[in-house]
Amino acid sequence: MPLLVMKFGGTSVADLSRIKNAAEKVKREVARGYDVIVIVSAMSGKTNELVGWVEQTSPLYDAREYDAVVASGENVTAGLMALTLQEMDVPARSWQGWQVPINTTSQHAAARFMSIPRDNIDAKFAEGFKVAVVAGFQGLSHEGRVTTLGRGGSDTTAVAFAAAFAAERCDIYTDVDGIYTTDPRISPKARKLDKIAFEEMLELASLGAKVLQTRSVELAMRYKVRLRVLSSFEDTDDNSGTLVCDEDEIMESKVVSGVAYSRDEAKLTLVTVEDRPGVASAIFGPLSEAGVNVDMIVQNISEKDYDEAHPGAVTDMTFSCPVNQVARAKKAMEDARSAGKINYEDLVVDTDVAKISVVGIGMRSHAGVAARMFEALAAENINIKVISTSEIKISVLIDRKYMELAVQALHDAFELEKVA
Amino acid sequence: MPLLVMKFGGTSVADLSRIKNAAEKVKREVARGYDVIVIVSAMSGKTNELVGWVEQTSPLYDAREYDAVVASGENVTAGLMALTLQEMDVPARSWQGWQVPINTTSQHAAARFMSIPRDNIDAKFAEGFKVAVVAGFQGLSHEGRVTTLGRGGSDTTAVAFAAAFAAERCDIYTDVDGIYTTDPRISPKARKLDKIAFEEMLELASLGAKVLQTRSVELAMRYKVRLRVLSSFEDTDDNSGTLVCDEDEIMESKVVSGVAYSRDEAKLTLVTVEDRPGVASAIFGPLSEAGVNVDMIVQNISEKDYDEAHPGAVTDMTFSCPVNQVARAKKAMEDARSAGKINYEDLVVDTDVAKISVVGIGMRSHAGVAARMFEALAAENINIKVISTSEIKISVLIDRKYMELAVQALHDAFELEKVA
Repeated sequence: MPLLVMKFGGTSVADLSRIKNAAEKVKREVARGYDVIVIVSAMSGKTNELVGWVEQTSPLYDAREYDAVVASGENVTAGLMALTLQEMDVPARSWQGWQVPINTTSQHAAARFMSIPRDNIDAKFAEGFKVAVVAGFQGLSHEGRVTTLGRGGSDTTAVAFAAAFAAERCDIYTDVDGIYTTDPRISPKARKLDKIAFEEMLELASLGAKVLQTRSVELAMRYKVRLRVLSSFEDTDDNSGTLVCDEDEIMESKVVSGVAYSRDEAKLTLVTVEDRPGVASAIFGPLSEAGVNVDMIVQNISEKDYDEAHPGAVTDMTFSCPVNQVARAKKAMEDARSAGKINYEDLVVDTDVAKISVVGIGMRSHAGVAARMFEALAAENINIKVISTSEIKISVLIDRKYMELAVQALHDAFELEKVA
Repeated sequence: MPLLVMKFGGTSVADLSRIKNAAEKVKREVARGYDVIVIVSAMSGKTNELVGWVEQTSPLYDAREYDAVVASGENVTAGLMALTLQEMDVPARSWQGWQVPINTTSQHAAARFMSIPRDNIDAKFAEGFKVAVVAGFQGLSHEGRVTTLGRGGSDTTAVAFAAAFAAERCDIYTDVDGIYTTDPRISPKARKLDKIAFEEMLELASLGAKVLQTRSVELAMRYKVRLRVLSSFEDTDDNSGTLVCDEDEIMESKVVSGVAYSRDEAKLTLVTVEDRPGVASAIFGPLSEAGVNVDMIVQNISEKDYDEAHPGAVTDMTFSCPVNQVARAKKAMEDARSAGKINYEDLVVDTDVAKISVVGIGMRSHAGVAARMFEALAAENINIKVISTSEIKISVLIDRKYMELAVQALHDAFELEKVA
């Protein structure tokens, strides 16, 4: 029997009528001959309520108890979804993590999958059950305690089940109808993509197109799970949404697939740092320890000696991080300087920047993407402050006030409104 | 290490500050040298919310899914209580039913205990944990599914753990400070009892003094678990509350321990029923099938023949039931008559009655209790409509409007305001 995994997030199961709406989508796939594994999140708001209670009770909480409390939200939805399906004459039952069992590591609140044995659920399919409704986001440690995967973990649960059960596809139902070439709120020309490669989705996800949890895309890529993102709130069919898949499945790939942005970035420059082995680690070690999520890093090499008191080459080191982490980053740098671990003349902070990225696997075989990007920005008189590139992505930092303009200009320049 | 079981009901863990208050009581017992098993209910209102969702989803719900959903409320409280205790430097962890495991039958929503193996919890006590916080009301079926014990089941969980772990005592923290000789709202002379025998508590519980679930008292009686009922909301010590215990532990027992009442009763009389073998079962079988909770049953034997068309002896059959079940009872009787299973001339219903009972194990060795009761009621001009007696209880039905007066008169007549 072909098998599908269908995942419904918190807004898709926010109340009983939405659970019913989701169940109707499941029933349709059952009617088409599929066995279905449904992965559900907690009803929206519930997880926040539970997390709030835990944090109020114990600011430095025992993560094992956090998990025991927080995982209960998904158990409620799983039972309600099973009941809703039964009401529609679809043979269904709910599964909590320990019942499957979903074996994970013991890193509470951030557990990782170890194994998902198929036996128990397969036995129920063999008995005539058509749907297994599994509580997302949770698992079981080898000590027999409830674990959770960290926020957003239900996407990852869905992909892990799709891999374990060799599902034909993993459909992620959410509150958007697919992946767009850019944010439609910024560019009205934004176009929904029919397909996107795993690698592109990873770059887009981490850049702020927060439709799928990054980890779930990584897992899908590793196990070649075909992921589909589609809307819970619309009538959907086989052609709905966006398929996230192996690039081999994408026949005609455009050079650039999308333009992503990240609004609240800050640029920090350490002026005249010594240019010697070990300097980068002396800088980024303390930042990492301080919990600063450093994104772009650019080093300008300088051959000139600084002065007699400071022999040797010097350089400027620029990096970016979320704007709300600037205070932490500054303190980490000042502490490291006071402790004599690094030396710098000045720390220049620019909190008014945004990051714009163009992403596309086609870039690998096409020269000139960077040139076209810079030309488009120049045509709008937008100054580029930092550039960083990867194999399938070019990112720049620009003044925040030009962010929307830059996204629109790049969307036009790469003709993303047109189908490839 | 001596061990205590402490149970906190829904109002005692209604929010984080009440959970903290409860945890302080636990900490005090730990400081006195006890290992403690804490049984918690769901935060008040939570179980009703979950039950509401299930019933809205599926009026004839699958009880297995009902249990999976509804049991989650206790898991939340258990985790929060463990965290609260940890914050007070009391080594504690939470236990869900399947983790202990609390083995029950597979009668979902009405499961009964099979066994509670001590190994897992004992191992944690041996590691240095001082408190095991166990989610009440739930268990595990041998099919590996979550079960619940029916509403109020957390009291029963507490007693079952006290029996399994040979606890010194099982303290039930609730919103009243003990068991009274009668309802203090009706008689200001009501006095809190220091001790009450299991049998007396059973009669009082089923008669409306709804402090302890009847099943938990039965279980405590069977395993001789010393139960103490006391308030979560007051400072408590070893002498607080009421101890429910074996009658051997009660030195000076009064003849009557308490006066109970039940306000919303109805009296139904089947006039001129045939008096032959099988009539009672022909009447009460259909009532039971219709879900009518028949309480008192009185049959007046008549030797007189009815008339020529109906030879043989006839009788009147009177019974009582909750007033909101009268319609169902009438329909069951009329249907049985239409089907030719029973015959009666008339069905007389009195929906304006209340039941008053005097309860006391001392009655067994004291004559004259009934006489004293009837005398006290007669002195107030209260007419007795039905009388029913058991070994340690005498119950009467009277006009509802005299209920408060009757309770006060009986409380005075048996001098219950005085310590024995």
